Amino acid sequence: MLSELLLAEMSRLGAEDVLPLHRQLYEALRRAMLDGKLGAGERLPSSRDLAQDLRLSRNTVVAAINQLSVEGYLASRVGSGTYVSDNVPRTTPGRSPRNGHAQGVTAQADRLSSRGLALATQFSAAELEVQPFTPGIADFSAFPLTLWQRLQNKHWRMTYPDMLDYNDSGGYAPLRRAVADYLRVFRSVQLEADQVIITTGTQQSLELCARLLADHGDTVWVEDPAYWGAVKAFMATGLAIHPVAVDEQGINPSTADNTRTPRLIYVTPSHQYPTGAVMSLPRRHQLLATARAHDAWVLEDDYDSEYRFSGPPLSSLEGLDTDGRVFYMGTFSKVLYPGLKIGYLVVPKPLVAAFKQAHYDLNRPGQMPVQAALAEFIEMGHFTSALRRARQNYAERRKSLLDALEPVLHDSAPEGPSISGAEQGLHLCLRLPGGTDDRALAQRIAQHGLTVRPLSAYCLQRHDLRGLVVGYGYAPMAEIERCGPLLAQLVNNF
Amino acid sequence: MLSELLLAEMSRLGAEDVLPLHRQLYEALRRAMLDGKLGAGERLPSSRDLAQDLRLSRNTVVAAINQLSVEGYLASRVGSGTYVSDNVPRTTPGRSPRNGHAQGVTAQADRLSSRGLALATQFSAAELEVQPFTPGIADFSAFPLTLWQRLQNKHWRMTYPDMLDYNDSGGYAPLRRAVADYLRVFRSVQLEADQVIITTGTQQSLELCARLLADHGDTVWVEDPAYWGAVKAFMATGLAIHPVAVDEQGINPSTADNTRTPRLIYVTPSHQYPTGAVMSLPRRHQLLATARAHDAWVLEDDYDSEYRFSGPPLSSLEGLDTDGRVFYMGTFSKVLYPGLKIGYLVVPKPLVAAFKQAHYDLNRPGQMPVQAALAEFIEMGHFTSALRRARQNYAERRKSLLDALEPVLHDSAPEGPSISGAEQGLHLCLRLPGGTDDRALAQRIAQHGLTVRPLSAYCLQRHDLRGLVVGYGYAPMAEIERCGPLLAQLVNNF
Repeated sequence: MLSELLLAEMSRLGAEDVLPLHRQLYEALRRAMLDGKLGAGERLPSSRDLAQDLRLSRNTVVAAINQLSVEGYLASRVGSGTYVSDNVPRTTPGRSPRNGHAQGVTAQADRLSSRGLALATQFSAAELEVQPFTPGIADFSAFPLTLWQRLQNKHWRMTYPDMLDYNDSGGYAPLRRAVADYLRVFRSVQLEADQVIITTGTQQSLELCARLLADHGDTVWVEDPAYWGAVKAFMATGLAIHPVAVDEQGINPSTADNTRTPRLIYVTPSHQYPTGAVMSLPRRHQLLATARAHDAWVLEDDYDSEYRFSGPPLSSLEGLDTDGRVFYMGTFSKVLYPGLKIGYLVVPKPLVAAFKQAHYDLNRPGQMPVQAALAEFIEMGHFTSALRRARQNYAERRKSLLDALEPVLHDSAPEGPSISGAEQGLHLCLRLPGGTDDRALAQRIAQHGLTVRPLSAYCLQRHDLRGLVVGYGYAPMAEIERCGPLLAQLVNNF
Repeated sequence: MLSELLLAEMSRLGAEDVLPLHRQLYEALRRAMLDGKLGAGERLPSSRDLAQDLRLSRNTVVAAINQLSVEGYLASRVGSGTYVSDNVPRTTPGRSPRNGHAQGVTAQADRLSSRGLALATQFSAAELEVQPFTPGIADFSAFPLTLWQRLQNKHWRMTYPDMLDYNDSGGYAPLRRAVADYLRVFRSVQLEADQVIITTGTQQSLELCARLLADHGDTVWVEDPAYWGAVKAFMATGLAIHPVAVDEQGINPSTADNTRTPRLIYVTPSHQYPTGAVMSLPRRHQLLATARAHDAWVLEDDYDSEYRFSGPPLSSLEGLDTDGRVFYMGTFSKVLYPGLKIGYLVVPKPLVAAFKQAHYDLNRPGQMPVQAALAEFIEMGHFTSALRRARQNYAERRKSLLDALEPVLHDSAPEGPSISGAEQGLHLCLRLPGGTDDRALAQRIAQHGLTVRPLSAYCLQRHDLRGLVVGYGYAPMAEIERCGPLLAQLVNNF
């Protein structure tokens, strides 16, 4: 029954478009789910059975199922197969979003493009309550606002042509120099100021790389579990996503499917998001060698390297790279003030001119007065001193949270709770035993006015990870001291 | 010889990827040009001959050639066929950018993806000298900077959660209300505040629409001649571009190829960029009917409707639309201050939730303090009074420029020079006889310290338009009075 439906849809697709078989099957399955012919919770036949029924190779079936899992249409339960996910949007039956005539205003899903539907519904950021332990939120109460306002007022008096960014679309030149000086000293990035391109943040940096370096349909390797924002940027630019498992040393290229040749490899080596793993030096060399073997580009997202609490800092991947294949990116919005919306991308020299031109044409960059104020802020040393002050604050909060979580770790089970990723950044990962329903636990915790994220929510294809992603950047010390023991108690009683 | 080369490449492509024939031919021709096998200035066989040699339908050949023309690889000379354009970038021969192993740093073009190469080299904005008559540049000397600084300082004291835009990613709510009030009164847009999404400007608004409403390979109709920024946004999102000719009433849907079913139609009806044509009311109705017949979305870019100098204002297309298929967009950067980087997109109600979610996930919007300052600036009436003052200034400059150009129009030839598009906005179009080399004329003018743009540089497929796009927004009155007669003299003596 299902196989007949799929075969009919595939033969229609095969006639209409010229699509490879795994894409035809992907589309046929997706439409069956959108039309409700495959309902939420329904179990899919095994890939072996499906391959036999449809007379397709098993690889073809697996490719289609993997893509649907990555996009969130399908979910797997350990040991019991693959199911239609609960959050598949439903379209009006019988009408494909791509053709047919206007019939008045129909359901949203019906009017969006296929990619639009995926972009609007899959891997969406959760509603963000800003409360103790929300990850990804920092404390800006110590930001030197009066000084900032003075700098900003000064530079809002900017006149032509400085106010525009037409002739050198890498951004405001003094800011590019200031960023280059900072990265050279503190992050061992090897660069000249001209290689720095100022963007509105990591999303823009990622999209620029995806578009200029990869074509529609090319493969990007991403960490599993992954930072959703990056997954979304790659979906939006039409890349095929190949999740590669992360272990305690970071992404492990040995577990990747080497037939899925990467054009790009996206990594967060300093503090893997969300597990917090720091990529070891041998792993860094292995990753660069893998990239070289595939002639792939490496995108290094160094999103929170500013705060390191123990152990020696590892130099950036970019700093180890000998053949110019690493793009290094970071942002000021997470460190200084979210309203800034300023990030940076370091581009290998031979590609700088192309990136600058495309960045101008695609993004029409601007915000020059803010860029100028930030340049002066950094040059005058305020940035590094703000970081130094903040690091002390965060170190106290981190210690308080670790102390509070201590009782949770006293579990005698061999796979008992543990903490990863607390050496750096503003979040840690509390790992829990494999069977834990971490989503339910996070919901229970939310009922007590605390926000943590379930680790399983960041997983693309793996099913073995459970835990909580806990931020300590936002809440002041007194709050951490009050809420830390409550969090520990809620975890222990679950 | 050429046909053998193309057939070999196409058969390789046909085996490797699953591409429709016209895409195979497109790729084969493009690679021949990139590898230098088809050199700059070389003449292509006619589409009829090529179709015969390659045993393809003529439609297939024409589709491939059209796409290459739109992307700037090919150029046509009136009456003498199609040539390889002078600005095709060259790759190292024998190595495709998509495969092969690292061989050290090679030429840029060699390392970029196919779309990256197109994005970095085709339809790029020219270097922008800010001097008298540069189009697209306004005068911000009257911007009430002290007031603005006061508002901005106030709102940079913003705290959580207002500082973030996580829970309602349409932007800062009071700004959305202020924009909605303004558009309802001044632009007859029918909307509620919730339909307004704050973006960083028109590029971001266009990409959001292209991604959510159209899939890779879908067709967008654009005006010919066109606004480059929009063409680039559609190229970047993988759309196939179908240029539709503009006449004195704006885009003319009757001249479109209806077999190229549009998913999107992009228009600048208030003041077509660059010709300045104002879309007539019957044409507006015709366009909406065409969109309805194809079940296409209309993207209305109202980039400079703030300044209208004569005749009654026409209501927006959105205001005429009865079935919710128009997306309306504008920007504050062109009107108030380029450093702002704030624009807006009005989304039909049923799609608001999807657009807000995708906008948050893809673009991580921000700049909340600036959004808040702008909201108060508009609410307090400063925006409309700033527009009123500026309109008077610009009206004087416009009149001075028109007076100066008067002698140019005294040409007795039937196809002599004329002016279009001076009723609105900050530029006008000086139309010149068909044979004029407007690029050479613009270069001659640049030698005298004035910047105008050749009309032919905005053309996608047409070859009949010649003229100069002249801005009067930037230079103060005294400059216009000094430089206007010089411009007229340079045109007359050419």
